[in-house]
Amino acid sequence: MIILGIDPGYAITGFGVVEHDGRRFKTFDYGTIETPADMPFPERLLAIDQGIDSLIQTYQPDCVSVEELFFYRNTTTAMGTAQARGVAVVAAARENLPVHEYTPMQVKVAVTGYGHAEKAQIQEMVRILLNLKEVPKPDDAADALAVAICHAHTGNLDSTRAVGGYQKGPPKRRWR
Amino acid sequence: MIILGIDPGYAITGFGVVEHDGRRFKTFDYGTIETPADMPFPERLLAIDQGIDSLIQTYQPDCVSVEELFFYRNTTTAMGTAQARGVAVVAAARENLPVHEYTPMQVKVAVTGYGHAEKAQIQEMVRILLNLKEVPKPDDAADALAVAICHAHTGNLDSTRAVGGYQKGPPKRRWR
Repeated sequence: MIILGIDPGYAITGFGVVEHDGRRFKTFDYGTIETPADMPFPERLLAIDQGIDSLIQTYQPDCVSVEELFFYRNTTTAMGTAQARGVAVVAAARENLPVHEYTPMQVKVAVTGYGHAEKAQIQEMVRILLNLKEVPKPDDAADALAVAICHAHTGNLDSTRAVGGYQKGPPKRRWR
Repeated sequence: MIILGIDPGYAITGFGVVEHDGRRFKTFDYGTIETPADMPFPERLLAIDQGIDSLIQTYQPDCVSVEELFFYRNTTTAMGTAQARGVAVVAAARENLPVHEYTPMQVKVAVTGYGHAEKAQIQEMVRILLNLKEVPKPDDAADALAVAICHAHTGNLDSTRAVGGYQKGPPKRRWR
């Protein structure tokens, strides 16, 4: 299955496209969608929408994997990031792709086997698992690849697509 | 000009469609897009996306007006609301509609002339300005009508649409 991992942000959205055959990974692409700070906010969201849509059209992923949001302080950045995440999620849902959501802890455990792994450890494991020569840069791209790997390692790979484009069954997230 | 006001939320998104000729208002529609709590989050966002898109197709508004987000505590609700807002904003931007953003204070001043007006005062002014028999219900619909009125009263009604679908000039919002 082909997995599109997304690390959403309104300035930088990281993405990573990998294929997993149940044992090994193949890396199709990774990088970032960047929007300039002087671009009006609705245009930045539109650029993210179009960027994600273009990746979906290009790589025809079977699903999307994205981290849940956790912020300890309520900042303009948090609100902007959340809006960018909403745009990324709905871009996938519009294409009827299942969207899988993982906590940062789930990603760490799935990639390194350890829930308190440091960023450098995660990035090194991403490099090894994907058989890359160097750690993927920037961090946003590495994070996106990590959440894609997380889904490959922990997701229910055999389940079929659910009505409305969402994968039923775990992992599930309640918003109320 | 026809203005679509939106009060975004992942459970309830309020909307209000009004026409303003520079002096008087005509109310075309108002109401809510509601998503059930047991619906997976990506589907809820998709329902909001489709709901906003359907309103745009039906009423062909000239622009969209939406409140900026302010949260004093960082909750799951805040993160969910922000994601819903991102979806609503990008639905408008995709249709090349200018998106105008106003602070809650700007909305209060524009509707009641007073920056610390209570909710009931705002709703009563919405009723009077739109010449409605009763205060619009629910609150989310009234809030959406208020932000639409705010744009009619304070926006630059004569300016042309800017490149990328965003209205240049004030009100402007910096995200960095």
